[in-house]
Amino acid sequence: MFEFIALDADDTLWDNEIYYTQSKEAFVRLLSPYAREEGAIKRRLDEIEEGNVAIYGYGIKSFTLSMLEAAVEISQGAISGREMEAIIELGREMLTTRVRVFPWTEDTLATLAKDWQLMLITKGDVFEQSKKIERTGLLKYFRYVEIVGDKTTSTYRTLLERHHISPKRFLMVGNSLRSDILPVLELGGQAVYIPYTDTWEHEHRLDRELPKDGYYELENLAQLPELARRLSRKMTG
Amino acid sequence: MFEFIALDADDTLWDNEIYYTQSKEAFVRLLSPYAREEGAIKRRLDEIEEGNVAIYGYGIKSFTLSMLEAAVEISQGAISGREMEAIIELGREMLTTRVRVFPWTEDTLATLAKDWQLMLITKGDVFEQSKKIERTGLLKYFRYVEIVGDKTTSTYRTLLERHHISPKRFLMVGNSLRSDILPVLELGGQAVYIPYTDTWEHEHRLDRELPKDGYYELENLAQLPELARRLSRKMTG
Repeated sequence: MFEFIALDADDTLWDNEIYYTQSKEAFVRLLSPYAREEGAIKRRLDEIEEGNVAIYGYGIKSFTLSMLEAAVEISQGAISGREMEAIIELGREMLTTRVRVFPWTEDTLATLAKDWQLMLITKGDVFEQSKKIERTGLLKYFRYVEIVGDKTTSTYRTLLERHHISPKRFLMVGNSLRSDILPVLELGGQAVYIPYTDTWEHEHRLDRELPKDGYYELENLAQLPELARRLSRKMTG
Repeated sequence: MFEFIALDADDTLWDNEIYYTQSKEAFVRLLSPYAREEGAIKRRLDEIEEGNVAIYGYGIKSFTLSMLEAAVEISQGAISGREMEAIIELGREMLTTRVRVFPWTEDTLATLAKDWQLMLITKGDVFEQSKKIERTGLLKYFRYVEIVGDKTTSTYRTLLERHHISPKRFLMVGNSLRSDILPVLELGGQAVYIPYTDTWEHEHRLDRELPKDGYYELENLAQLPELARRLSRKMTG
């Protein structure tokens, strides 16, 4: 049996990336009078965003500041105060919008929680993520909620040690090979990859071969309880 | 004996408020062409900042977004892209500046750490605070570092429970009556108030009477080891 099933949150339990995509689209429209080509606007924003992670960290406030910086640069300073205000407003909307939990999420969590202890492991700004998790009403299904700065092998090692969990009895589920799957497999844990169609580029980069041991792939979170039961039987059988 | 001596960080171990004060001064200078009176600029910024805490949380990114919002409003949209860029840069400087640790901080922590387990309890943005604590090089003196969203009685209760500490054996040290002292006294702990001259207005508000039991006041952190020894003798004697 697994001691813990851990789940990623954004784009695994509810929509997240789509809000970034929509804001980026609005940003490109807003900046299009100042640039020859819309693709160049998006590319420059992505670069600035990635360059700022080390200073700002992840999250919506960080993203908003990157949009504002990109707006000044792309418009060569010609952006207006009201346009900057519209960009600030894009960020505020992302922070306050109703989170769209996937229709199958709550049933799946309720089913899993009957047989396993659940942990939520999500990356990002602690303030933003805690507010969001509260808003979803799904907190009650989780024994622990861990909001981490990054999801590296060392992050998972620390979490497993803190909760005295053996990697062999740990199953991680998420939509990012880079953040949810590979580091857990590296530690000897098991991992279930459930791809999401709209994942941020940064997360797609795979510089390591995918190990076969303990790796599973599902199309939908609703299939997880059955897989978890099957794996548990295999472990005890 | 105390089981733990917990210390606040910002303006208790190192300068913090001064960076906000300096940025606010630079902001007021930048906005002065757009307003009749400099006092009004600062007041409006303070209001916007306080109004945004619920959405953005605490920290420098939050403060930067509030400055940008205030700039558009105060200038009635007339603020230029380059001026907005200068405001973004004020925030970046705050995030990357060398932290000025007080000259007596490291010696005091080293002395305390010989006799007690130390905990750092600081409020704010987790990403920003962890980076800053790392930069100070003082992490090694602390058994635990706790970065919390707010310092209420309930926050301290949760921390004491998590670490199995009896309030009677817990001493909290800090520069904010509201955040460091009152909630701890309310739980039956002891607290040492070390005032800082430049504390943020929000923190000064005291809507409750100060209990006398377990409350101490020092002029300087360097006096803490002696007080802690005296209190420990009183407890065991």
